[in-house]
Amino acid sequence: MGDINAIAKQFTDFYYQTFDADRSQLSALYRDMSMLTWENNPIQGAKDITEKLVSLPFEKVQHRVLTLDAQPASASVAAILVLVTGQLLVDDGQNVLPYSQMFHLVPEGQGYFVQNDVFRLVYG
Amino acid sequence: MGDINAIAKQFTDFYYQTFDADRSQLSALYRDMSMLTWENNPIQGAKDITEKLVSLPFEKVQHRVLTLDAQPASASVAAILVLVTGQLLVDDGQNVLPYSQMFHLVPEGQGYFVQNDVFRLVYG
Repeated sequence: MGDINAIAKQFTDFYYQTFDADRSQLSALYRDMSMLTWENNPIQGAKDITEKLVSLPFEKVQHRVLTLDAQPASASVAAILVLVTGQLLVDDGQNVLPYSQMFHLVPEGQGYFVQNDVFRLVYG
Repeated sequence: MGDINAIAKQFTDFYYQTFDADRSQLSALYRDMSMLTWENNPIQGAKDITEKLVSLPFEKVQHRVLTLDAQPASASVAAILVLVTGQLLVDDGQNVLPYSQMFHLVPEGQGYFVQNDVFRLVYG
Protein backbone atom coordinates (compact mmCIF):
# COMPACT_ATOMS: atom_id res chain seq x y z
CA MET A 1 0.00 0.00 0.00
CA GLY A 2 2.99 2.28 -0.47
CA ASP A 3 1.39 4.19 -3.30
CA ILE A 4 -1.87 4.67 -1.48
CA ASN A 5 -0.19 6.08 1.60
CA ALA A 6 1.89 8.42 -0.58
CA ILE A 7 -1.23 9.63 -2.40
CA ALA A 8 -3.06 10.15 0.88
CA LYS A 9 -0.12 12.12 2.28
CA GLN A 10 0.16 14.23 -0.87
CA PHE A 11 -3.57 14.90 -0.88
CA THR A 12 -3.85 15.86 2.78
CA ASP A 13 -0.74 18.06 2.60
CA PHE A 14 -2.26 19.93 -0.33
CA TYR A 15 -5.76 20.01 1.19
CA TYR A 16 -4.71 21.45 4.54
CA GLN A 17 -2.19 23.90 3.06
CA THR A 18 -4.97 25.20 0.81
CA PHE A 19 -7.47 25.24 3.69
CA ASP A 20 -5.12 27.21 5.90
CA ALA A 21 -4.05 29.67 3.16
CA ASP A 22 -7.27 30.30 1.17
CA ARG A 23 -10.29 28.08 1.84
CA SER A 24 -12.12 29.31 -1.28
CA GLN A 25 -9.60 27.39 -3.43
CA LEU A 26 -10.84 24.08 -2.02
CA SER A 27 -13.76 24.17 -4.47
CA ALA A 28 -11.48 22.62 -7.10
CA LEU A 29 -11.36 19.41 -5.04
CA TYR A 30 -15.13 18.83 -4.85
CA ARG A 31 -17.75 17.97 -7.49
CA ASP A 32 -21.53 18.35 -7.67
CA MET A 33 -22.08 14.93 -6.07
CA SER A 34 -19.52 15.51 -3.31
CA MET A 35 -20.72 15.37 0.28
CA LEU A 36 -19.40 17.11 3.36
CA THR A 37 -20.66 16.53 6.88
CA TRP A 38 -19.17 19.29 9.02
CA GLU A 39 -19.93 18.91 12.71
CA ASN A 40 -23.21 17.14 11.95
CA ASN A 41 -24.22 19.55 9.14
CA PRO A 42 -24.66 17.70 5.82
CA ILE A 43 -23.81 19.72 2.69
CA GLN A 44 -23.74 18.58 -0.92
CA GLY A 45 -21.98 19.98 -3.99
CA ALA A 46 -18.76 21.93 -4.54
CA LYS A 47 -20.46 25.31 -4.39
CA ASP A 48 -22.31 24.84 -1.11
CA ILE A 49 -19.38 23.00 0.47
CA THR A 50 -17.01 25.83 -0.40
CA GLU A 51 -19.44 28.42 0.94
CA LYS A 52 -19.65 26.48 4.20
CA LEU A 53 -15.87 26.18 4.53
CA VAL A 54 -15.30 29.85 3.74
CA SER A 55 -17.96 30.90 6.28
CA LEU A 56 -16.38 29.04 9.22
CA PRO A 57 -15.90 31.41 12.14
CA PHE A 58 -12.13 31.54 12.36
CA GLU A 59 -9.87 33.94 10.55
CA LYS A 60 -6.57 32.16 11.00
CA VAL A 61 -6.39 28.39 11.18
CA GLN A 62 -3.65 25.81 10.92
CA HIS A 63 -4.02 22.03 10.67
CA ARG A 64 -1.52 19.77 12.38
CA VAL A 65 -1.85 16.15 11.19
CA LEU A 66 -0.97 13.62 13.89
CA THR A 67 -2.05 10.36 12.24
CA LEU A 68 -2.88 9.47 8.66
CA ASP A 69 -4.23 6.10 7.49
CA ALA A 70 -5.23 5.09 3.98
CA GLN A 71 -6.88 2.02 2.47
CA PRO A 72 -8.15 1.14 -1.00
CA ALA A 73 -11.94 1.54 -0.95
CA SER A 74 -12.42 -1.66 -2.98
CA ALA A 75 -10.53 -4.27 -4.96
CA SER A 76 -11.95 -3.07 -8.28
CA VAL A 77 -11.82 0.73 -8.15
CA ALA A 78 -8.81 2.93 -7.42
CA ALA A 79 -10.69 5.00 -4.85
CA ILE A 80 -9.00 5.66 -1.52
CA LEU A 81 -10.31 6.06 2.02
CA VAL A 82 -8.33 8.29 4.35
CA LEU A 83 -8.67 8.80 8.10
CA VAL A 84 -6.88 11.76 9.67
CA THR A 85 -6.60 12.65 13.32
CA GLY A 86 -4.98 15.91 14.23
CA GLN A 87 -5.23 19.32 15.78
CA LEU A 88 -6.82 22.52 14.58
CA LEU A 89 -4.81 25.52 15.76
CA VAL A 90 -7.16 28.46 15.73
CA ASP A 91 -6.33 32.17 16.02
CA ASP A 92 -2.54 31.95 16.22
CA GLY A 93 -2.57 28.69 18.12
CA GLN A 94 -4.30 30.00 21.21
CA ASN A 95 -6.98 27.35 20.78
CA VAL A 96 -5.95 23.75 20.04
CA LEU A 97 -8.89 21.62 18.93
CA PRO A 98 -8.39 17.86 18.38
CA TYR A 99 -10.26 16.67 15.28
CA SER A 100 -10.90 13.65 13.14
CA GLN A 101 -11.60 13.73 9.40
CA MET A 102 -12.47 11.08 6.85
CA PHE A 103 -12.02 11.47 3.08
CA HIS A 104 -13.18 9.27 0.21
CA LEU A 105 -11.02 10.13 -2.79
CA VAL A 106 -12.22 9.07 -6.25
CA PRO A 107 -9.84 9.03 -9.24
CA GLU A 108 -10.45 11.48 -12.08
CA GLY A 109 -7.97 12.03 -14.87
CA GLN A 110 -4.50 12.26 -13.33
CA GLY A 111 -5.84 13.15 -9.92
CA TYR A 112 -8.61 12.65 -7.40
CA PHE A 113 -11.66 14.49 -6.20
CA VAL A 114 -13.33 14.32 -2.79
CA GLN A 115 -16.51 12.24 -2.96
CA ASN A 116 -17.02 12.10 0.83
CA ASP A 117 -15.72 14.28 3.62
CA VAL A 118 -16.69 14.04 7.29
CA PHE A 119 -15.18 16.40 9.87
CA ARG A 120 -15.60 16.19 13.63
CA LEU A 121 -13.98 17.88 16.57
CA VAL A 122 -12.99 15.28 19.15
CA TYR A 123 -13.74 15.85 22.80
CA GLY A 124 -11.73 13.72 25.19
CA MET B 1 -30.26 10.31 4.67
CA GLY B 2 -32.58 9.05 7.41
CA ASP B 3 -32.14 5.43 6.42
CA ILE B 4 -28.38 5.66 6.21
CA ASN B 5 -28.07 7.19 9.65
CA ALA B 6 -30.37 4.51 11.08
CA ILE B 7 -28.33 1.75 9.45
CA ALA B 8 -25.09 3.26 10.72
CA LYS B 9 -26.52 3.50 14.24
CA GLN B 10 -27.81 -0.08 14.12
CA PHE B 11 -24.48 -1.33 12.80
CA THR B 12 -22.30 0.48 15.33
CA ASP B 13 -24.58 -0.51 18.23
CA PHE B 14 -24.25 -4.15 17.21
CA TYR B 15 -20.54 -3.89 16.43
CA TYR B 16 -19.54 -2.35 19.75
CA GLN B 17 -21.87 -4.52 21.84
CA THR B 18 -20.29 -7.56 20.20
CA PHE B 19 -16.79 -6.13 20.59
CA ASP B 20 -17.31 -5.47 24.29
CA ALA B 21 -19.01 -8.83 25.01
CA ASP B 22 -17.07 -11.32 22.84
CA ARG B 23 -14.65 -9.98 20.23
CA SER B 24 -14.32 -13.38 18.52
CA GLN B 25 -17.89 -13.00 17.22
CA LEU B 26 -16.86 -10.00 15.10
CA SER B 27 -15.50 -12.37 12.46
CA ALA B 28 -19.03 -12.64 11.02
CA LEU B 29 -18.85 -8.98 9.99
CA TYR B 30 -15.65 -9.25 7.91
CA ARG B 31 -14.83 -11.02 4.63
CA ASP B 32 -11.62 -12.22 2.99
CA MET B 33 -11.11 -8.87 1.25
CA SER B 34 -11.87 -6.81 4.36
CA MET B 35 -9.16 -4.50 5.65
CA LEU B 36 -8.47 -3.27 9.16
CA THR B 37 -5.84 -0.72 10.07
CA TRP B 38 -5.52 -0.82 13.85
CA GLU B 39 -3.22 1.85 15.24
CA ASN B 40 -1.15 1.84 12.05
CA ASN B 41 -1.10 -1.98 11.71
CA PRO B 42 -2.68 -3.10 8.41
CA ILE B 43 -4.45 -6.48 8.50
CA GLN B 44 -6.47 -8.18 5.77
CA GLY B 45 -9.14 -10.89 5.92
CA ALA B 46 -11.74 -11.92 8.48
CA LYS B 47 -9.49 -14.54 10.10
CA ASP B 48 -6.46 -12.32 10.68
CA ILE B 49 -8.61 -9.34 11.65
CA THR B 50 -10.45 -11.38 14.27
CA GLU B 51 -7.18 -12.77 15.64
CA LYS B 52 -5.88 -9.22 15.97
CA LEU B 53 -9.01 -7.97 17.75
CA VAL B 54 -9.09 -10.94 20.13
CA SER B 55 -5.40 -10.48 20.96
CA LEU B 56 -5.74 -6.82 22.03
CA PRO B 57 -4.26 -6.32 25.49
CA PHE B 58 -7.35 -5.45 27.48
CA GLU B 59 -9.63 -7.89 29.22
CA LYS B 60 -12.61 -5.64 29.79
CA VAL B 61 -13.49 -2.91 27.39
CA GLN B 62 -16.50 -0.72 26.75
CA HIS B 63 -17.10 1.64 23.83
CA ARG B 64 -18.93 4.92 24.38
CA VAL B 65 -19.96 6.52 21.07
CA LEU B 66 -19.97 10.32 21.21
CA THR B 67 -20.53 11.20 17.53
CA LEU B 68 -21.72 9.16 14.58
CA ASP B 69 -21.83 10.39 10.97
CA ALA B 70 -22.84 8.44 7.87
CA GLN B 71 -22.79 9.16 4.15
CA PRO B 72 -23.56 7.09 1.04
CA ALA B 73 -20.21 6.05 -0.45
CA SER B 74 -21.44 6.75 -3.99
CA ALA B 75 -24.54 7.58 -5.97
CA SER B 76 -24.64 4.15 -7.62
CA VAL B 77 -23.90 1.65 -4.86
CA ALA B 78 -25.66 1.28 -1.51
CA ALA B 79 -22.39 1.23 0.43
CA ILE B 80 -22.11 3.45 3.50
CA LEU B 81 -19.23 5.34 5.07
CA VAL B 82 -19.33 5.84 8.83
CA LEU B 83 -17.16 8.00 11.06
CA VAL B 84 -17.31 7.43 14.81
CA THR B 85 -15.65 9.40 17.55
CA GLY B 86 -15.91 8.12 21.07
CA GLN B 87 -14.22 6.79 24.16
CA LEU B 88 -12.75 3.41 24.96
CA LEU B 89 -13.28 2.60 28.64
CA VAL B 90 -10.65 0.05 29.55
CA ASP B 91 -10.43 -2.14 32.66
CA ASP B 92 -13.63 -1.05 34.41
CA GLY B 93 -13.40 2.51 33.14
CA GLN B 94 -10.19 3.39 34.95
CA ASN B 95 -8.67 4.35 31.62
CA VAL B 96 -10.67 6.53 29.21
CA LEU B 97 -9.13 6.61 25.74
CA PRO B 98 -10.62 8.92 23.06
CA TYR B 99 -10.72 7.21 19.67
CA SER B 100 -11.84 7.67 16.10
CA GLN B 101 -13.00 4.87 13.80
CA MET B 102 -14.03 4.77 10.16
CA PHE B 103 -16.11 1.98 8.59
CA HIS B 104 -16.94 1.27 4.96
CA LEU B 105 -20.04 -0.95 4.94
CA VAL B 106 -20.88 -2.87 1.77
CA PRO B 107 -24.33 -4.41 1.24
CA GLU B 108 -24.63 -8.19 1.10
CA GLY B 109 -28.00 -9.98 1.13
CA GLN B 110 -30.16 -8.33 3.77
CA GLY B 111 -27.20 -6.86 5.63
CA TYR B 112 -23.73 -5.36 5.34
CA PHE B 113 -20.17 -6.46 5.81
CA VAL B 114 -17.16 -4.34 6.75
CA GLN B 115 -14.97 -3.68 3.70
CA ASN B 116 -12.76 -1.08 5.43
CA ASP B 117 -12.08 -0.37 9.08
CA VAL B 118 -9.57 2.13 10.45
CA PHE B 119 -9.13 2.61 14.20
CA ARG B 120 -7.05 5.28 15.91
CA LEU B 121 -6.69 6.48 19.44
CA VAL B 122 -6.86 10.27 19.53
CA TYR B 123 -4.39 12.26 21.57
CA GLY B 124 -5.43 15.80 22.34
